[in-house]
Amino acid sequence: MINITNRLRKLNFDLLNAPEPVGNYKATLLSGNLLYISGQLPIIDGKVMYKGQLGKTLTVEEGIKAAELCALNALSQLEKSAVNKSLKQIVKVEGYINASKSFEEHAQVLNGASDLFANVLGESAGHIRTVVGCTSLPLGVPVEISIIAELES
Amino acid sequence: MINITNRLRKLNFDLLNAPEPVGNYKATLLSGNLLYISGQLPIIDGKVMYKGQLGKTLTVEEGIKAAELCALNALSQLEKSAVNKSLKQIVKVEGYINASKSFEEHAQVLNGASDLFANVLGESAGHIRTVVGCTSLPLGVPVEISIIAELES
Amino acid sequence: MINITNRLRKLNFDLLNAPEPVGNYKATLLSGNLLYISGQLPIIDGKVMYKGQLGKTLTVEEGIKAAELCALNALSQLEKSAVNKSLKQIVKVEGYINASKSFEEHAQVLNGASDLFANVLGESAGHIRTVVGCTSLPLGVPVEISIIAELES
Repeated sequence: MINITNRLRKLNFDLLNAPEPVGNYKATLLSGNLLYISGQLPIIDGKVMYKGQLGKTLTVEEGIKAAELCALNALSQLEKSAVNKSLKQIVKVEGYINASKSFEEHAQVLNGASDLFANVLGESAGHIRTVVGCTSLPLGVPVEISIIAELES
Repeated sequence: MINITNRLRKLNFDLLNAPEPVGNYKATLLSGNLLYISGQLPIIDGKVMYKGQLGKTLTVEEGIKAAELCALNALSQLEKSAVNKSLKQIVKVEGYINASKSFEEHAQVLNGASDLFANVLGESAGHIRTVVGCTSLPLGVPVEISIIAELES
Repeated sequence: MINITNRLRKLNFDLLNAPEPVGNYKATLLSGNLLYISGQLPIIDGKVMYKGQLGKTLTVEEGIKAAELCALNALSQLEKSAVNKSLKQIVKVEGYINASKSFEEHAQVLNGASDLFANVLGESAGHIRTVVGCTSLPLGVPVEISIIAELES
């Protein structure tokens, strides 16, 4: 069983307070042995850490950092909700990038999330993914990611 | 077992004619005990009820009403396709908002759908969700939602 | 069991080399009896075949061809990864269209994918779908599709 907290510490990351939903929905939901996680934003304790648009006000490197922070929140949700079950693999990562019309490096930005998952979860990082450019995202953030994770049955 | 029709009537809503697919795809599809529902638009009997963009030609309140109508169509699809099986929970709601670059209230708009699900389905409303801003949506609508629902096995 | 290669040949298509992931993620992933496929682009052997935006630099007909090519890559991924298992049905198709603000024919564009699936897979084409307009997509392509397929258990 992977100890996410310990793996993150070795990478100089700490788990965050998993963001609470701000409406009639859940942060995480278990269906069969799949754990679905609501769209995660680059926020810490409710404070938005990145705002703006890739290809215009933010560099690819800043986008990567924002994607990494979204992934850290997803790991925090995972740890909070699946304490008694071990992770088998991350199944899917949906990446949404606030991006200009001429932006083409969506994949590089989302690598910020995929690389963190790989470094923390090893083989269990798994995942297929989609990544697309949006006109705007909630609270003005540049990146949002949603994941589906499979737990050991 | 939840009687969606009766619950809706108490809220002064009626089920709609569940929109038919307009191509080589299905309105709903069962895979295991998950019912997948195609993207629903704010239409009634094929007539588009809301057009335009949040942050520009539509207010947040109008967006909420459009999201509510999408959710009503989703409930109509659910009722039409799962008559012999009871709903366990809505697993996921994907919300797509036609939104301007500076728009930030995507979550409030999608609450129009989440609140209707909560009021009609109670505990079974469940659901995690994602919400993002799009440049445009089919037929010029401001909101599209897609849901995955879990049926009792 | 459907022979995708033979069915494609009758339609004058050939399977493509299924695109490899360009980062810490997978092209396809099996979870239970669901095969998830990463977002597919209109590329052949790594070369981008379509670039631009629907409603501006590309016609609906070009968009349909781009969607068809994405679908052909998805079929190539399916064939590559599920050789020992037969396809039951395609469950979901997510269509992302690089589209202008005034574009409304997203559904027609995605029909390029749905129609190929129907022609090749027959009843097993199944699928519900979502389709939305994006500001931009990876590598400047006009269409990206992601699919979930169910295999016989």
